[in-house]
Amino acid sequence: MATEAIQSGEQPKKSLILNAFVEMCSGHQSPGLWRHPDDHSKDFNSVDHWIELAKLLERAKFHGMFIADVLGGYDVYKGPHNLEPAIRSAAQWPVNEPLAVIPAMAAATTSLSFGATVAVTYEQPFHLARRLSTVDHLTNGRVGWNIVTGYLDSAARNLGYTQQPEHDERYAIAEEYIRVMYKLFESSWRDDAVVLDKERGIYTDPSRVREINHKGKYYSVPGPHICQPSPQRTPLLLQAGTSRAGKAFAAQHAEAIFVGGHSPSVIAKNIAEIRSLAESFGRNRHDVKFLAMMCPIIGKTEEEARAKYEDYIQYGDIEGALALFGGWTGIDLSVYGDDEELRHVESNAIRSAVEAWSHAIPGIPRWTKKTVGRHLAIGGLGATVIGTPATVADEFERWVREADVDGFNIAYAVKPGTFVDVAELLIPELRRRGLFWDDYKVPGGTYRENFYGQKGQSRVLDRHIASKYTWKAGVEKEAFKEPES
Amino acid sequence: MATEAIQSGEQPKKSLILNAFVEMCSGHQSPGLWRHPDDHSKDFNSVDHWIELAKLLERAKFHGMFIADVLGGYDVYKGPHNLEPAIRSAAQWPVNEPLAVIPAMAAATTSLSFGATVAVTYEQPFHLARRLSTVDHLTNGRVGWNIVTGYLDSAARNLGYTQQPEHDERYAIAEEYIRVMYKLFESSWRDDAVVLDKERGIYTDPSRVREINHKGKYYSVPGPHICQPSPQRTPLLLQAGTSRAGKAFAAQHAEAIFVGGHSPSVIAKNIAEIRSLAESFGRNRHDVKFLAMMCPIIGKTEEEARAKYEDYIQYGDIEGALALFGGWTGIDLSVYGDDEELRHVESNAIRSAVEAWSHAIPGIPRWTKKTVGRHLAIGGLGATVIGTPATVADEFERWVREADVDGFNIAYAVKPGTFVDVAELLIPELRRRGLFWDDYKVPGGTYRENFYGQKGQSRVLDRHIASKYTWKAGVEKEAFKEPES
Repeated sequence: MATEAIQSGEQPKKSLILNAFVEMCSGHQSPGLWRHPDDHSKDFNSVDHWIELAKLLERAKFHGMFIADVLGGYDVYKGPHNLEPAIRSAAQWPVNEPLAVIPAMAAATTSLSFGATVAVTYEQPFHLARRLSTVDHLTNGRVGWNIVTGYLDSAARNLGYTQQPEHDERYAIAEEYIRVMYKLFESSWRDDAVVLDKERGIYTDPSRVREINHKGKYYSVPGPHICQPSPQRTPLLLQAGTSRAGKAFAAQHAEAIFVGGHSPSVIAKNIAEIRSLAESFGRNRHDVKFLAMMCPIIGKTEEEARAKYEDYIQYGDIEGALALFGGWTGIDLSVYGDDEELRHVESNAIRSAVEAWSHAIPGIPRWTKKTVGRHLAIGGLGATVIGTPATVADEFERWVREADVDGFNIAYAVKPGTFVDVAELLIPELRRRGLFWDDYKVPGGTYRENFYGQKGQSRVLDRHIASKYTWKAGVEKEAFKEPES
Repeated sequence: MATEAIQSGEQPKKSLILNAFVEMCSGHQSPGLWRHPDDHSKDFNSVDHWIELAKLLERAKFHGMFIADVLGGYDVYKGPHNLEPAIRSAAQWPVNEPLAVIPAMAAATTSLSFGATVAVTYEQPFHLARRLSTVDHLTNGRVGWNIVTGYLDSAARNLGYTQQPEHDERYAIAEEYIRVMYKLFESSWRDDAVVLDKERGIYTDPSRVREINHKGKYYSVPGPHICQPSPQRTPLLLQAGTSRAGKAFAAQHAEAIFVGGHSPSVIAKNIAEIRSLAESFGRNRHDVKFLAMMCPIIGKTEEEARAKYEDYIQYGDIEGALALFGGWTGIDLSVYGDDEELRHVESNAIRSAVEAWSHAIPGIPRWTKKTVGRHLAIGGLGATVIGTPATVADEFERWVREADVDGFNIAYAVKPGTFVDVAELLIPELRRRGLFWDDYKVPGGTYRENFYGQKGQSRVLDRHIASKYTWKAGVEKEAFKEPES
């Protein structure tokens, strides 16, 4: 695959992108499974736990490990402001800061990349730009940034707000924020600013560093950026929003988008829409890669897989799952009776969500809050697929075919067991079908090089908006122009 | 040494505390020396550079590596707002974020501890508490936090201020900030909150987690803390202020205090005063450990040491040193003529600073800005001692005798060369004199255990104000009382 092919937007051969989906907490998408004898996710406070996981994923040639994050507790269920169900079940609680562990894992690997969620709402862009550039340096360019605006009031209240800023305003803030980040990452230092000229005593050439002098509605940042250009300059940009404002943001900025749903039909429309929106921003449809959340429960036979699921689900914590659901959706299901059929309740949001699940998962006679909780207790709002490697690979192919996804964000039931199964059982099957690489395209390369499968592509694609901010080698300060924003 | 000895405040035997003083930048206290063939400090963007340094320091049994930090450039000299001299000479520019690299070094070591500077001025306490607790977990309790309020307007302007808040107000903010941190670290989770009760499905007992409901002048933080108690709960607390407000803060909160000056007489009074102030806060004089900044240039003979210094100083960058001086003091020496004797200028601050140096370093006929710059270009505002291991050890002993310091914060001329010399030449001499341990007091222990030399002392001393916030195991939520603040 030549650079020209990427830059001209031809769709590369659909070799899947595989990502391990984790969080610096116990359980993540599978509340309660910390009780399973095989689960080690409660060791999340240990650096060795993470290093071992990174090595496992690199041996299996995963593209990346993605560390989700929240800055507050899931306190909607039985709420408002009730953390008890989440605390008791360890539903994403407690949860540590994700960037801290990435350089330690990078030091123990060479090609695996690392994404982390960091909210723009609670930290000055100058501060976060330094944190991200530092990690991009320390990982040799193997970091991605999942841009979120935050969705938990419980986080906002602890960070100087009385509640979250209103949704569309959050995206207005995010839009200005990301521009400031581009200016710091891309336009503040010339590519060749650090000259290390020992004879003349010049470490950095001052004529190749400039203030960005950003003055906007929300931020005032004179700059310059305090870090020299890192291997990727702008980390690989990840996103997850599917609201209207979120889509416009993602279509313009995101290189990878996380999507989730119980069947490909739920997300196919969104994906097509964002790809088209991306085109309207001058990008190609396939510059944006979609990764669907998927929790595979794999056995050598269908029976073994089913037995594995039944073994796991007995540890699922329904209250924990309903706590997570409350935080994700703002809906408190505790107000309904234990036996109440949720497809008949007054709330449109609940009716339509449950209706969709009931189509995706037939055979459940009654959808009560307990059914919902049990259903969410393994794999959360993503799909859970149970079967042999062939069954799971078939399902992966169906998602690619029906929803045009580019890969999968693999949630675990038990950690690292689910990833071991993917490595030992599923990946060989995907390789047999030509759906997964034998090795990193660019061993020792940056996240973006392996993500786009192109050596030399450490920086954003030329069509990406961030590239308009890049101060390239050889361009005089006076001749350099930033785009208007 | 028994716990009782510490808790009753008897002075332990003066075995020195040795700390390596670094920053995530090139040069740190020795601008220009990146040009020296033996200097590797310009590799600061590489994680392996840091891991190798950590291993070297652990082999030598250093107590800790301390990573200084600034969030802005040194733009006072030839200013205002002129970064050119700092950019050109790499005078603490560029500089990466320090916490990011600590877990990677911790994973490669077992007993070495790590301090980092983090300013309270620019980040919400809830956010920083999570970052620090995460690193305390990942390092197994080997992290220290140097609390600073920031001193560079160039940082403030990039982080939402037009300039630094006024000095005393910065300390008022810091005082409230640290209380919020104590509440999050110490009083939000009971020591035994995480029960991992698989039978009853209880990960954390909700009755052992509480909101802190802090509402102060500057911060509103309901809590609870989002991380479970880490090995130290509150990281080892470091401080460096010697202003009036700074002293009161340090005397109450700091466990280690960094001091700097060209001779012990300069700092002896401050040290005695802070020790007495500490007593007025209910602490013992020796609960607070003072580490003097010192840059040792060591040779097997006096001639070899002197030759080494002369070799190093030819790479010193005078403009870079004057840029650092400008940032540290707010004084722009560029306004003086090249040959102007600075002991005769109008400015009191300059006259007295230079006068003090001229006493500490006799034999310099004229103190011009060039003399000052040359003088600061190795070791900055700390003392530089040149000689054999015996000479340097004598000087260490003199500092202990005359200023009552507890150890040294060792700045480098070249990195890691200065630390190699300390390990290979100086430490054996210190050991011969009974001034340095043969091994960590608590191998594999926490920072606080090795710092106070007491197994089991991972938490703050009982006399430290933070201990009043600690929610200990077994205490019912209703019976737990936080101190008024």
